[in-house]
Amino acid sequence: MPDVAVIFGSDSDIPKARDCMNMLKDFGVQFETVISSAHRSPDETLNWAKSASERGIKVIIAAAGGAAHLPGVIASHTILPVIGVPIETNISGGLDSIFSILQMPSGIPVAAMAAGKAGAINAAIYAISILALSNEVYAKKLAEFRKELAKNNSDKNKRLQSIGYEEYIKGMEKSK
Amino acid sequence: MPDVAVIFGSDSDIPKARDCMNMLKDFGVQFETVISSAHRSPDETLNWAKSASERGIKVIIAAAGGAAHLPGVIASHTILPVIGVPIETNISGGLDSIFSILQMPSGIPVAAMAAGKAGAINAAIYAISILALSNEVYAKKLAEFRKELAKNNSDKNKRLQSIGYEEYIKGMEKSK
Amino acid sequence: MPDVAVIFGSDSDIPKARDCMNMLKDFGVQFETVISSAHRSPDETLNWAKSASERGIKVIIAAAGGAAHLPGVIASHTILPVIGVPIETNISGGLDSIFSILQMPSGIPVAAMAAGKAGAINAAIYAISILALSNEVYAKKLAEFRKELAKNNSDKNKRLQSIGYEEYIKGMEKSK
Amino acid sequence: MPDVAVIFGSDSDIPKARDCMNMLKDFGVQFETVISSAHRSPDETLNWAKSASERGIKVIIAAAGGAAHLPGVIASHTILPVIGVPIETNISGGLDSIFSILQMPSGIPVAAMAAGKAGAINAAIYAISILALSNEVYAKKLAEFRKELAKNNSDKNKRLQSIGYEEYIKGMEKSK
Amino acid sequence: MPDVAVIFGSDSDIPKARDCMNMLKDFGVQFETVISSAHRSPDETLNWAKSASERGIKVIIAAAGGAAHLPGVIASHTILPVIGVPIETNISGGLDSIFSILQMPSGIPVAAMAAGKAGAINAAIYAISILALSNEVYAKKLAEFRKELAKNNSDKNKRLQSIGYEEYIKGMEKSK
Amino acid sequence: MPDVAVIFGSDSDIPKARDCMNMLKDFGVQFETVISSAHRSPDETLNWAKSASERGIKVIIAAAGGAAHLPGVIASHTILPVIGVPIETNISGGLDSIFSILQMPSGIPVAAMAAGKAGAINAAIYAISILALSNEVYAKKLAEFRKELAKNNSDKNKRLQSIGYEEYIKGMEKSK
Amino acid sequence: MPDVAVIFGSDSDIPKARDCMNMLKDFGVQFETVISSAHRSPDETLNWAKSASERGIKVIIAAAGGAAHLPGVIASHTILPVIGVPIETNISGGLDSIFSILQMPSGIPVAAMAAGKAGAINAAIYAISILALSNEVYAKKLAEFRKELAKNNSDKNKRLQSIGYEEYIKGMEKSK
Amino acid sequence: MPDVAVIFGSDSDIPKARDCMNMLKDFGVQFETVISSAHRSPDETLNWAKSASERGIKVIIAAAGGAAHLPGVIASHTILPVIGVPIETNISGGLDSIFSILQMPSGIPVAAMAAGKAGAINAAIYAISILALSNEVYAKKLAEFRKELAKNNSDKNKRLQSIGYEEYIKGMEKSK
Repeated sequence: MPDVAVIFGSDSDIPKARDCMNMLKDFGVQFETVISSAHRSPDETLNWAKSASERGIKVIIAAAGGAAHLPGVIASHTILPVIGVPIETNISGGLDSIFSILQMPSGIPVAAMAAGKAGAINAAIYAISILALSNEVYAKKLAEFRKELAKNNSDKNKRLQSIGYEEYIKGMEKSK
Repeated sequence: MPDVAVIFGSDSDIPKARDCMNMLKDFGVQFETVISSAHRSPDETLNWAKSASERGIKVIIAAAGGAAHLPGVIASHTILPVIGVPIETNISGGLDSIFSILQMPSGIPVAAMAAGKAGAINAAIYAISILALSNEVYAKKLAEFRKELAKNNSDKNKRLQSIGYEEYIKGMEKSK
Repeated sequence: MPDVAVIFGSDSDIPKARDCMNMLKDFGVQFETVISSAHRSPDETLNWAKSASERGIKVIIAAAGGAAHLPGVIASHTILPVIGVPIETNISGGLDSIFSILQMPSGIPVAAMAAGKAGAINAAIYAISILALSNEVYAKKLAEFRKELAKNNSDKNKRLQSIGYEEYIKGMEKSK
Repeated sequence: MPDVAVIFGSDSDIPKARDCMNMLKDFGVQFETVISSAHRSPDETLNWAKSASERGIKVIIAAAGGAAHLPGVIASHTILPVIGVPIETNISGGLDSIFSILQMPSGIPVAAMAAGKAGAINAAIYAISILALSNEVYAKKLAEFRKELAKNNSDKNKRLQSIGYEEYIKGMEKSK
Repeated sequence: MPDVAVIFGSDSDIPKARDCMNMLKDFGVQFETVISSAHRSPDETLNWAKSASERGIKVIIAAAGGAAHLPGVIASHTILPVIGVPIETNISGGLDSIFSILQMPSGIPVAAMAAGKAGAINAAIYAISILALSNEVYAKKLAEFRKELAKNNSDKNKRLQSIGYEEYIKGMEKSK
Repeated sequence: MPDVAVIFGSDSDIPKARDCMNMLKDFGVQFETVISSAHRSPDETLNWAKSASERGIKVIIAAAGGAAHLPGVIASHTILPVIGVPIETNISGGLDSIFSILQMPSGIPVAAMAAGKAGAINAAIYAISILALSNEVYAKKLAEFRKELAKNNSDKNKRLQSIGYEEYIKGMEKSK
Repeated sequence: MPDVAVIFGSDSDIPKARDCMNMLKDFGVQFETVISSAHRSPDETLNWAKSASERGIKVIIAAAGGAAHLPGVIASHTILPVIGVPIETNISGGLDSIFSILQMPSGIPVAAMAAGKAGAINAAIYAISILALSNEVYAKKLAEFRKELAKNNSDKNKRLQSIGYEEYIKGMEKSK
Repeated sequence: MPDVAVIFGSDSDIPKARDCMNMLKDFGVQFETVISSAHRSPDETLNWAKSASERGIKVIIAAAGGAAHLPGVIASHTILPVIGVPIETNISGGLDSIFSILQMPSGIPVAAMAAGKAGAINAAIYAISILALSNEVYAKKLAEFRKELAKNNSDKNKRLQSIGYEEYIKGMEKSK
């Protein structure tokens, strides 16, 4: 039984946010991935949202772009925490998606993440940080993950100190 | 039986858009005014939207601000033409409202009007222009209204020509 | 005799909005496509706009970019409902086009659609939703179209559930 | 022992977000309110953030404006879920605050709420929705709260239907 | 016979741009002030624009806000140089007005000034700089005016040097 | 002796604005093209600006991007009309360039054109419209040019009417 | 002999940035305050900028709004470090001022501060941080100032902990 | 012992800002390049920042994108002058990075440079202009560098005058 659901308004957004699912997988989180549009299949979307809690879902991640109503529409039909991922668009790189997710009216919150790939990854991590409040395994994994991030940064810096910025850039260009 | 419905997500927006209802009244259009939030009373909203057509409504005007999902949510539950009025906010005077109404995905259009009072008035006029396609009385009234606008402009200009800009401004300041 | 007219200020915008005409065609709507610039051929544009109603046109779709005056200029010469499609530009993906179409003064409304391709498609659908008010065939087709959208979403979701997000993405990448 | 902490980078922001604390209080949530600047008292801030989990805090709400680093800086020192409230500024009503909170890099998420008062209230509700995952009392209260919102909307609508929009607006103006 | 025309789409903008007319007057320029809306009185506007050159007008100043089509519409009906003044609005202080005036398509230029009062004044000065190309009196006056601006700056600086910034500010506050 | 000068702050902008010079050439205008940076070669720039009028220059076109001070700096050293062309940048397609050119303080106007190629072309045409006030040859050519634009539009429309939008688009794609 | 110069393009900006001078005074820095416009008194401005270094000035603070060329124009005539303060405007709270100061071309940097009062104060502190590199007194004072900021934050927090947020807000409202 | 440190929050930004290091090298400045994230390795970052002054660093350049907290976080732990370089992003070309660096609260300044490559170069030059206050070698080199910029501009202009704009553009296209 999944703890987290990742829902997309359009299947074209799935590849852009695949790192979200990959991250959940890496942490061993049970999750489901769903396509359901707030506008094109509204009844399916609201039925899904209304029953999410009963089906054991604890956190919902919703990714959408443009007039990105999906996270807000879902939030209006559930009391579960909803995390919104603004898909990047041509309007200033996703300003329309950001505002439609962020500017929810008082009473019905949605947690907005950054636009694009970083937001997709962070939605997964944020969901895990919520699950970690009552699950020590996730809490430990999350702490490990953070140490890993710091160590990774530290290793990169050590390499930079030893070879200098010019060699470092050359190495980056090669590995592309 | 009303031809037009004006729906608000929050009653605090009603005074800001009252010119919309006044304009409908001036044209003799039958209309209903409704409060129903896309987020706070989602079931009421969608039931209302689904049954709008059966109740004889022909055009729906929806006014909302911030993550202004109301027009889009209604449009997803009806094939009636929906007109969206972005309520002004602190985000650049309503850029969040504008994007949430304007940037609808392909398949489910909403007709966006200007932000604020001009948009509220124009929503009424646009609704009337739709009704006028199959109602000669409205068509005539609309043509009259447009002549009136032109005449009003012309009269103001004549006054300006006769008294000059300085007197004209003084007159404006007095009449405040 | 066409019911809908699609007018372009510049022929370079025609390919960007071709889905508008395709959608009208799919619905069996009679339409004409016209090139006439608000600025470069103003007299032709206004004569066209003034006579549109007499020629039986019911809804006008006008696509323009930058200082996109075309929809507003046409609206000033007719009482027919005008739908504006903002062509995408380099200014935040079309913010100039959006404002020039959206921010019409009170009295002369234009119905603004989303910027770009989604707006072009939605202009057609919105026009059809207006025609459908007095034409049952269009009303039925529109209801069908909406069911189709929902079914299409549902089918995609079923496929996603059966093969999982990784295979689904692979399938998308192949079909490119 | 508090479950939630509300932290402010500047005491001048406390009155703007007081509804956040009031909402927590209404729900009977134990919380602490703290002033600690990411920039002016960085050591105090990071010590506070590092020890928050040990002190039993489960969710952190951080409100900040301008280069609103506080939520992100706190998130970098804890694995607890952090909710960011962008305080409104003169830059487009808080676009600087929004971006500084929203656009966190992958690995260290912050949950951004709407700018201003709605965001302050929603931060409290979002925190409660997280606590409600492992606390049935909060879950029930939250469901009640949502019913209340819907009923409140419904009551307002009934009143509007019975007295009409003109009387309704008069009533609103009187009660100011 | 006037050399310059100042045209307004709405009489409500006249007081905001009155410094434009005052500046023309100060320089002794013959000018006319006109109210004619691009949208509400389109025929009057275009007839006026088409005949402007014949009536001896050399430069046209057009002030408008929102979907500020007036300067562009006039420019499409005359080869005279047109100067556009964006009236300030709630959209980022006039970003809609700016874009609608600035982003004219190739072939039909409009000279955009700053939004608001500075733009209104500068429209007058720019018009005079054009007239000054074939009128030595204006050229001399303009050179005088510029010297005056520099001297005025210099005098203020001298005063500041002699009394210090604190007294200077006190003086400013008194003279309010 | 040139009537118009086109000045660039950076030679990298010359190709982006080449249509400006081409247009001046097409109209038979004598012009000079100059590279001089407001920031990197300020003395050369101001000496050039101060002497422009004496050397017989009547209109100055200045193209610059980013903190595009060049048009304003030149305008501060001459009373000749200055036309500014905002070069497109990564900041919303040139919003930085636009503001730096447009928002001149009262007393020292610059005429801002559209960002990018359209602005470059229009700068030339605007310069010609100024010269045309005292030069009948230019006035005639400009009127011809406008008729040409209208005819060109009309011809394209005729072709569209005869072959339909699908063939028209195919023709456009072929001629690429 | 002053170490720092604070220059204003318009005397109307002096009161808005007075905290800059007050801060310099508090630190015991010798400074001069100057009015000189980049556009209205360009020669005076450039002479002042060219001679600043000889007169012993070490850091220049320039405050300007709109097309805020002053900091950049000064930077083009001196190799001294220039700090720019964007004065707030109606364009998104100063986005025009920010871009005109920030987006300097490569070779001629200006150090941009925040828009408005915070930027004015920070310009003074940044200037002092530069002077402190070769002046131990300033270095000590700056370290003191930073401790003071932290202590001030800490004191406020202690007060908040002892009286609670509601009393704290009441106290703030009283002291207004 | 290095005088300047260039710190990056992510190694992916190093290639984008390599001209910063190259410029420091060209001037013979001793510098170190460091990778340390404000969010992923916060302890390492703050330890580095706290000890920077002791290790003899005089100026810190910090480059970051998105919620670009790095420059501000470093500034909160040192009294050394910090220069921030906003890395370009998809949000209007870096508006998020700009605001997060620019809008620092009063007391803790960061000197913001232009977004992208120009800002990276200018950060180096600004650092040198600070060092030049107490180092005549750098002051001379900086003056030379500026003369070089002016001469370079002048040479380009001479070439343009001798061969004309068309040949000049051809030459540019060849040398690509």
